[in-house]
Amino acid sequence: MLNLAQAAKKAAIHLAATPHEVRNTALLAIADALRARQDEIFAANAADMEQAQADALDAPLLKRLRFDAAKLGEVLEGIAALTGLPDPIGETQRATELSPGLNLYRVACPIGVIGVIFESRPDALVQIASLCLKSGNAVLLKGGREAARTNRALFAALTEGLDAVGIPQGWAGLLESREEVAQMLRLDGCIDLIIPRGSNDFVRYIMDNSRIPVLGHADGLCAVYIDRAADIDMAVSVAVDSKAQYVAVCNAAETLLVHREIAPLALPTMARAMTEAGVRLKGCARTQALIDCEAATNADYDTEYLDYVMAVRIVDSLDEAVAHINAYGSGHTDCIVTCDAEAARTFLTLVDSAGVYHNCSTRFADGFRYGLGAEVGVATGKIHARGPMGLEGLCTYKYKLLGEGHVVAEFADGKRRFTHLALENSK
Amino acid sequence: MLNLAQAAKKAAIHLAATPHEVRNTALLAIADALRARQDEIFAANAADMEQAQADALDAPLLKRLRFDAAKLGEVLEGIAALTGLPDPIGETQRATELSPGLNLYRVACPIGVIGVIFESRPDALVQIASLCLKSGNAVLLKGGREAARTNRALFAALTEGLDAVGIPQGWAGLLESREEVAQMLRLDGCIDLIIPRGSNDFVRYIMDNSRIPVLGHADGLCAVYIDRAADIDMAVSVAVDSKAQYVAVCNAAETLLVHREIAPLALPTMARAMTEAGVRLKGCARTQALIDCEAATNADYDTEYLDYVMAVRIVDSLDEAVAHINAYGSGHTDCIVTCDAEAARTFLTLVDSAGVYHNCSTRFADGFRYGLGAEVGVATGKIHARGPMGLEGLCTYKYKLLGEGHVVAEFADGKRRFTHLALENSK
Repeated sequence: MLNLAQAAKKAAIHLAATPHEVRNTALLAIADALRARQDEIFAANAADMEQAQADALDAPLLKRLRFDAAKLGEVLEGIAALTGLPDPIGETQRATELSPGLNLYRVACPIGVIGVIFESRPDALVQIASLCLKSGNAVLLKGGREAARTNRALFAALTEGLDAVGIPQGWAGLLESREEVAQMLRLDGCIDLIIPRGSNDFVRYIMDNSRIPVLGHADGLCAVYIDRAADIDMAVSVAVDSKAQYVAVCNAAETLLVHREIAPLALPTMARAMTEAGVRLKGCARTQALIDCEAATNADYDTEYLDYVMAVRIVDSLDEAVAHINAYGSGHTDCIVTCDAEAARTFLTLVDSAGVYHNCSTRFADGFRYGLGAEVGVATGKIHARGPMGLEGLCTYKYKLLGEGHVVAEFADGKRRFTHLALENSK
Repeated sequence: MLNLAQAAKKAAIHLAATPHEVRNTALLAIADALRARQDEIFAANAADMEQAQADALDAPLLKRLRFDAAKLGEVLEGIAALTGLPDPIGETQRATELSPGLNLYRVACPIGVIGVIFESRPDALVQIASLCLKSGNAVLLKGGREAARTNRALFAALTEGLDAVGIPQGWAGLLESREEVAQMLRLDGCIDLIIPRGSNDFVRYIMDNSRIPVLGHADGLCAVYIDRAADIDMAVSVAVDSKAQYVAVCNAAETLLVHREIAPLALPTMARAMTEAGVRLKGCARTQALIDCEAATNADYDTEYLDYVMAVRIVDSLDEAVAHINAYGSGHTDCIVTCDAEAARTFLTLVDSAGVYHNCSTRFADGFRYGLGAEVGVATGKIHARGPMGLEGLCTYKYKLLGEGHVVAEFADGKRRFTHLALENSK
């Protein structure tokens, strides 16, 4: 493990210096290798699937585990799209003359070594490794145990022949055991960032057991608030889409808040539409007085159902809706439906979430829909990256200062003065 | 403690919505209160100083603890400068039409609640609280035990009468015990970021005991590398300034690396200049063959002296210098002195530090010198902020998505398509 991490750290330094063309050529080489090795990959996956069926894993897990021609097609499409994106590193973000002849440049660069721990989907291994390569980062990958054979076959395609195109050896490493993960979490001298993809408990376990920064989202507990000045048809349409367009994802809404003045008119229509969409509502006492539904408890407002279930609560005011979301929500994405521009402005300002929406579905919270080109993940923390995260989330910056022998003593003496002039962003 | 943190979280939501004028007015009110309460503050500080002398604290600590008219003057100047800086929040960083009528805005906003734990200097309490207020963040402050009376007097000035100008009560909280710090580290539901200012061990203790993100710098182990193509006069001048202009700070150089081809010519001159500046050199065996100095061990290259001592090592190549810095350095600031532009480019690309310098002193690594206006601290991590950190480091962003009832189902059906057009950054 330490060897893998040290090799990755060494590779990262040189990977950061590779031109964009080299990284793109390497991505195309990976695509070629995946095509050339597809029989081997499918055979490995068949063996993993057989084992998983013998172990009686449940159907959704089996579905995520499958890596077939369709999945390969998606993966290859993803790589092709990635090569078309602009280089995320090297850009000068800011340039300042500190004093004549002393120029400061803030330049985008890779973070270094990224540790990624992901669930059973083997396609995620290729996706995240490609994103890291595109952004000049070395990567240590740990996939699900049940996908071990598939991951090994994919990893071989990821790494073979890349040194021939100029990618330093050791840029990617494959971890296979939990012990290696535990070791990785202690290597804060080699690894710069951990991205865990898994359950909330798992993400918290990682945070509690490493001083390496962790970037990832825990819950997706999104709410739709129907304001008193909402258009009811729009409210129903946005709420149904937010809840039911695809229930198993983090940007699906789990909670419906309704202003008490509009509830008697809106809730019966809403309930019919939700029932048609297959959604079961659970409501507060005031909701139950208006529509026929099960009772919701406080625990319901804390639950990420990821299912055709939604908790409903009637609130007395916009402020109460905001307070509910800031108390129970997970800071992912929350929406207000209203025709009152001032109410919308207040909601968007006071709700402390990565995405604050007015009159549109929470399901839009996604890197591809946002036009970020590629999605690394959705961050619900507020540090470094927030919300859907593109390649930018895998980058940091460094300051380059170019002088002609400048020393601080001359500035302390008053012989020279700081000018702090903005320069054209060249260099 | 939980009450303080919850009050801060509540205040943060409303503080984030305050106009820039309100935050600036509040800063001026704080300055007025500090002036009005100065006798009380000086008296509290005198009592702290007396206690510290009775406890036989050492001279540097006593110096940091003192809060007199000169310190008050500096603090007031800092506040005045802060009011003159542009609003760090509210700016639209990116605006995209996702589809006609569906517009996405990425807007700068405060992080929320910042926990700051700092060493004995009481002026740091006012400085950090002002930075948080300017950037719309609530703050929990824990100062040194030996400055307790001074901190209390300053804190009173920070908070009195601010609700009258529109700052929500509870925006700042004062912690006084270690138990409260331990509690704070567990409140990841209320506190968004911890900024520790103290020893390396202390920063690591914080990282090991909290899942709240930590922003701060541990070591400042900076190196100056004299390349074979260096101008020797410039090399001596830059190295002496980097080491000796002010030794007790994180951007002072601790290590001198010298290319073997220039060492016989450069080192004797360098040694004379360093001796004149009061610096004691410790060298590798090859260094000792050229100049008279103590032996340096590997432990020396790992040591942040913060004193008139410097470790010297002769290297065989630029690559070896880079490898030394990436292995022993702390990722703070490192400099190459050379007339060879290609060597400089390689050094600046391969050295993995927040600041990579060519022909200028490491002592320039500072927020004020960089023109950032105000300095929150220097970050040696790579996540969120790196290097000298201005108000931007106390900010994050949120995505605002404004629609007209847009739902994802219509995009999934192919009825609508994403346009992803860049918009003028208005709103």
